[in-house]
Amino acid sequence: MNKTDPIRELQTGSFNYAIGPYSKPIADIEPGETFKVYTEDAFESRITKTTDVPSEKLNMPYLNPMTGPFYVKGAEKGDTIIVEIIDIQPTRDFAVSALIKDFGGLTGTGATALLNEPLPEKVWVYPIRDGKVWYNDQIGIPYKPFYGSIATAPEIEQISALAPGNYGGNMDCPDVCVGNKIWLPVNVEGAYFYVGDAHANQGDGELCGVALEHTAVGTFRIELIKGKRVAWPRVESKDEIMVIGSARPMEDAARIAYKELIIWMQEDYGFDPLEAYQLLTQVGKLHVANMVDTLYSLVAKCPKEYLLT
Amino acid sequence: MNKTDPIRELQTGSFNYAIGPYSKPIADIEPGETFKVYTEDAFESRITKTTDVPSEKLNMPYLNPMTGPFYVKGAEKGDTIIVEIIDIQPTRDFAVSALIKDFGGLTGTGATALLNEPLPEKVWVYPIRDGKVWYNDQIGIPYKPFYGSIATAPEIEQISALAPGNYGGNMDCPDVCVGNKIWLPVNVEGAYFYVGDAHANQGDGELCGVALEHTAVGTFRIELIKGKRVAWPRVESKDEIMVIGSARPMEDAARIAYKELIIWMQEDYGFDPLEAYQLLTQVGKLHVANMVDTLYSLVAKCPKEYLLT
Amino acid sequence: MNKTDPIRELQTGSFNYAIGPYSKPIADIEPGETFKVYTEDAFESRITKTTDVPSEKLNMPYLNPMTGPFYVKGAEKGDTIIVEIIDIQPTRDFAVSALIKDFGGLTGTGATALLNEPLPEKVWVYPIRDGKVWYNDQIGIPYKPFYGSIATAPEIEQISALAPGNYGGNMDCPDVCVGNKIWLPVNVEGAYFYVGDAHANQGDGELCGVALEHTAVGTFRIELIKGKRVAWPRVESKDEIMVIGSARPMEDAARIAYKELIIWMQEDYGFDPLEAYQLLTQVGKLHVANMVDTLYSLVAKCPKEYLLT
Amino acid sequence: MNKTDPIRELQTGSFNYAIGPYSKPIADIEPGETFKVYTEDAFESRITKTTDVPSEKLNMPYLNPMTGPFYVKGAEKGDTIIVEIIDIQPTRDFAVSALIKDFGGLTGTGATALLNEPLPEKVWVYPIRDGKVWYNDQIGIPYKPFYGSIATAPEIEQISALAPGNYGGNMDCPDVCVGNKIWLPVNVEGAYFYVGDAHANQGDGELCGVALEHTAVGTFRIELIKGKRVAWPRVESKDEIMVIGSARPMEDAARIAYKELIIWMQEDYGFDPLEAYQLLTQVGKLHVANMVDTLYSLVAKCPKEYLLT
Repeated sequence: MNKTDPIRELQTGSFNYAIGPYSKPIADIEPGETFKVYTEDAFESRITKTTDVPSEKLNMPYLNPMTGPFYVKGAEKGDTIIVEIIDIQPTRDFAVSALIKDFGGLTGTGATALLNEPLPEKVWVYPIRDGKVWYNDQIGIPYKPFYGSIATAPEIEQISALAPGNYGGNMDCPDVCVGNKIWLPVNVEGAYFYVGDAHANQGDGELCGVALEHTAVGTFRIELIKGKRVAWPRVESKDEIMVIGSARPMEDAARIAYKELIIWMQEDYGFDPLEAYQLLTQVGKLHVANMVDTLYSLVAKCPKEYLLT
Repeated sequence: MNKTDPIRELQTGSFNYAIGPYSKPIADIEPGETFKVYTEDAFESRITKTTDVPSEKLNMPYLNPMTGPFYVKGAEKGDTIIVEIIDIQPTRDFAVSALIKDFGGLTGTGATALLNEPLPEKVWVYPIRDGKVWYNDQIGIPYKPFYGSIATAPEIEQISALAPGNYGGNMDCPDVCVGNKIWLPVNVEGAYFYVGDAHANQGDGELCGVALEHTAVGTFRIELIKGKRVAWPRVESKDEIMVIGSARPMEDAARIAYKELIIWMQEDYGFDPLEAYQLLTQVGKLHVANMVDTLYSLVAKCPKEYLLT
Repeated sequence: MNKTDPIRELQTGSFNYAIGPYSKPIADIEPGETFKVYTEDAFESRITKTTDVPSEKLNMPYLNPMTGPFYVKGAEKGDTIIVEIIDIQPTRDFAVSALIKDFGGLTGTGATALLNEPLPEKVWVYPIRDGKVWYNDQIGIPYKPFYGSIATAPEIEQISALAPGNYGGNMDCPDVCVGNKIWLPVNVEGAYFYVGDAHANQGDGELCGVALEHTAVGTFRIELIKGKRVAWPRVESKDEIMVIGSARPMEDAARIAYKELIIWMQEDYGFDPLEAYQLLTQVGKLHVANMVDTLYSLVAKCPKEYLLT
Repeated sequence: MNKTDPIRELQTGSFNYAIGPYSKPIADIEPGETFKVYTEDAFESRITKTTDVPSEKLNMPYLNPMTGPFYVKGAEKGDTIIVEIIDIQPTRDFAVSALIKDFGGLTGTGATALLNEPLPEKVWVYPIRDGKVWYNDQIGIPYKPFYGSIATAPEIEQISALAPGNYGGNMDCPDVCVGNKIWLPVNVEGAYFYVGDAHANQGDGELCGVALEHTAVGTFRIELIKGKRVAWPRVESKDEIMVIGSARPMEDAARIAYKELIIWMQEDYGFDPLEAYQLLTQVGKLHVANMVDTLYSLVAKCPKEYLLT
C-alpha cells in the first residue's frame, strides 16, 4: 500500500492544545500522498511513573497535544477528506493511565458538579511487549492502537483538544484504527488536519477517562472528495460503515450517530430513510466510545452485508 | 442439560401488563427444575399484516404482555435468582416490527415532547425460515432469539411491562439469550418471576422501538442464591460477566452498569474497586441495549480472561 | 368558602408508600364537598432530633407515606379532577430536613452512580412560630405550606410515593399551595386521590432532597370534570396557568411542561400552537420544582394577562 | 452614577461570531470608566419583516454578532471583572423573533437529531413603544432589556457566539440586565470583554430559541478584582446573589449553578458548605434561562436577606 517515493516523516517541536483555523499549518499534504506523523501522548509525556502526581505534573488547559495542523492541498469548505490509517507503531515501550482529579466516568466532575470528596489520584504504567500491553505480570491486553483524537478545523471556532465534535476531535473511538478510513468534513481552505492522543488500546467508554496513552508514529494517506461535506465523522472498515456522534446527554450522541448512518445509507446505498431506520433497528450496532469527555461519543455501525441495493 | 422427568409447560390465558407483587402467581417453580414457558409477542399478536395500523390495533397501556408471575419456592427478600435460558423456539413462522406513533429513538415522544408532526405508522412482517428472519428476499438476519423482558417483582411497586429497572423488566438486551444466566434480585417472597417479549433478533438500541417481535416457547432453569441480593440485573455468558443498567439520561445507565460490574469484580473476583475501574477502562465493553424505552438500558461487560485473581 | 355542613376530617392509621389502583380506598369523597385530610411527614415522624441518624431511622422503600386513596364519586377514566387547596395548617411546631445517604442534588446517587464517598448524614430541626420556620435564631423563612405529593392513581401501575409522574405524585412543586387549583387526570374509576408530604416551605429544586417536612392538616374541595382528561398535572392560581412536567433528563421535563401549556392555551384560550410557542418564548416562566427525585419536575407558567383571546 | 468626563461611545463596523483570544481588541477600557457600547441584534438586522425567510437571510455560522473584544487594562489571567450594566436603550423601534429551522426548545435539532419533519419558518415583528414591546394590538410585554450574550475570552478557545459557558457567552439570562453586576473570569491578559444580543425581554427558557431581538446601546462600568478568578459567571442584584451554570443535560447546569452559589456563600459570607446546601434547599431560586442553546443555562439565586453572618 505504500508509494515507492520516500515517505515524509512529519513531526513538530510545539503542539496545539486547541483545534481550529487559528493555528498555523506545519506542512502541506498532497491528496494521495503517503506520510508519517509522530504524536505525543495526552500528557505530553509528563506522566511516566506510578509515583507521579497528575495534578502536579499537568498544566490545564494545556493537555492532549495535537500534531498539526496539516494543510491538505485543494481542500475547500464543502469538501470531505477521507483519512486512511495505514499503520500505527509505538515510539516507546510503555503506556500510562491515571486517575485525574474531578475527571472520569464514575466521579463528580466540573460538569456534574457535586459536593462529594474527589477520588484519589493514581498512575498506572503498562509495559508494551510481545504485542501486548501489560496490566500486571499475568494480564496482558492486546496492543490494538488507534487515535483518540483526529480532526479537521471547525470553520470559526478553535476548540480544546479535549473535546470531540462534528469535526472529529477527541472522540476516543477505538474504530479510528489501522485499516479503517475516517471521513472528516472540510470547513476551511486546506482542511487543517490534526491528529494525536494515540491509545495502545481502550475499553468502551474510556471509563476512568484515561486510556493506554503512548507516543506513536502513524502512516496515513488522505483522499479528497470534492463538493460533498459530511455532517459528522464517518468510519469505513472492511466490513462495516459507521458514524461517530458526540453530544450530551448521551442519548443525543446516539441519535446523531444513527441518524447520520441513515443519511449515509440513503445517499450511497439507495435506502429510503424509514427503511434504513427499520433495518438498523434489527442489525445496527451502537457502542459507547467515550463517557468522559466534554461531549460523549457513540459509534453506530451497519454491517455491509445488509447494504444490498 | 435436561432432567429426565417430563418438563412442565407453563402457559397462561391472560397476561400481566405490569410487573410487581400485586399479580397472582400462576404456578410454583422448584429451584433446579427445568420448565418451559410460552410467551405472547409485545403486541399480543394484534399486528400480523403490513396493512395493520398500530394505533388502531393497540390498546395503551395494555402492551407487552408478560407470562407469569411464577412463584419461586424458598425465595425471600434479600436473595437472588439465577435464571438459565436453556432454549428458545419460535411458535410461529414470522416476526413483526412497526413504527408506533410518538415512539422510537429518532422521533419526538411523550417524554421528549415536541411540536413536530409525528412519523407515519408502518408495519413490517419478517418470515422466519432456514434459521433466518427475512427483511426481504435478499436480506436475511440470523435468528438469534432472546427475551426483551425478564423480571422479578419490585417490593412495593407494580410497574408497566414497557419499563426496565433494577428488577429487570423491559431491558431489550440481546444478551438475555440462550446459553446465558440472568441474575435477578428477590424483593418479595416467591420472587415473582415474569418473562415475555421474545425477539427473533435485534440491533443495539432497538432503534425504532420495535424489534423482531414473535411468540415463542423458552426452556428455563432457576437457581436460588440465599442471603445475597444483587442491586441490578447481571448476566453471565461463557466468556463474559455483564451488568445491565437502566436509567435516563443514558450516561446514568452507563454509570450504573459499570459501577455494578466493579462491585461484582470486587465481591466475586477480589478486585480493589479502583483497580477494577482502571482495568475496565482498558478492556470493558459498553453497548446500548435500548434507546427507546421509559429508561434506557446499557450493558457493560468484562471478558472473563481478565478476571484472574 | 366553607360549607355550613360539618366538615369531615379524614385520617388514617396506616399509610400507602406507593400510589396506584391496588390500594383500598379509605373514604368516599363527594364532588363539591369540603373536607380535611391529615398527613404524616415524609419520614413518618421518625426523624425529630438533630441527633437522629437517617439511615438508622428510615426503612427503605417505606417512605413518604400517603394519606388515601380517596374514592371520588362519579369519577371515571377519561375525566379530570380539580383539587382546590383551601387551607393547610401545621399539626406540630417544627419542621425537619436532613442529608440522606446517596440522595440529593449535589451528590452521587443510585441513579448517578459514582465511586466517590457519600456525603455525611445530618439532621436539621426548624421551629415553626410567628408565621416563620426558623433556620436559626436570626434566619426565619416564611411559613408557606404546600403538598410535595398529590396524585390520582395510574391506570395499571402502583408507583413509589417518592416518584412524580403524569398522574402527579412527588413533584415537590411549591405551587401546589393554598389558594391554587390542581388538575389531575382520572385513570381509574373513583380517581383514587392521594395526598401527603406537606412542606412548610421549600426552595426551587429541593436541593438536598429534603424540604421543611412537617405533619399538617389540609382543607380541600374537589371538582369533577367529565369527559376530558389532562395529560399532565395543571395548576391554576389567581394570576397564572401552569403545567408541571416530570422526566429525566431535566430538559424533557421542561419540554413536557411547556408543550402541555401550549395545549392548554390552544384548548381553552383559542391560541394557534405556534403562536402560543412564540408568546411563551417572551413571557413564559420556567422554574425547577425538584432536581432530586426519581424524575425531575419543572413548572412552566403563563401569566393570565397574556391570555386575551 | 456617571462620571463627569464625556462618555466614550464604542462601536464597530465588523463583528465577531466567535468569542476568544484570537480576535483583535477594538478598544481599551480603563477599570472604573463609564462607557457606551452599541450592539447589533442576533441576526445582524437581516430579519426585519414577517415575510423574511430566516433560512434565506441567515448565513450559518455567522450569527449572533458580538461587539468587542475590549481590552481591560490591568486584567490578567486569575482575575475577575465585574461588569455593571448602568443602562440599555433601544436603537430602533422594533424587536423581532422567529422560528429557525431545526432550532428551538420544542423541535428536533442538530443535537437532538430526529427524522420528524421540521417546523415551518416564521417571523414576528414587535413594535417597541410606550415602554412595551407589542405582540399585537392588545398584548404588550414590558420593555425589560438585557444582554443575551456577555463574555470574557476563554484561555485557548474561540467559541461560537451562539454558545454559553464558564466564561459567559450566550447564556440568554434575563438577569444580565440594567442595575445588575456581572462577574466574569479573566483567562487572558486584557480579559477581552464581548457583549451583544440585546433582548427587549424574554421568557424563561427562551422557548422557541429567539427572544425579542433588537439593536441597542448600553452603558457599562467595569471593576477589576485582582487575584481571584470566579469559576462561573456570577450576578449580583440589589436583593440577590446568583450564579449562571451552563451545561447539558440541564441537571448539570442546575448542579453547577447551585454548587458555585454554595462556594460564593462559603467564600464571601462565611457559610459551611453543607449549611449553605441546606439553606438553599429551603430558600434558593432556580430558573431556566435558556433551554435552546448549545448548552442550557440555569440561574440559581439566594436572597441576600438570608446571608446574615
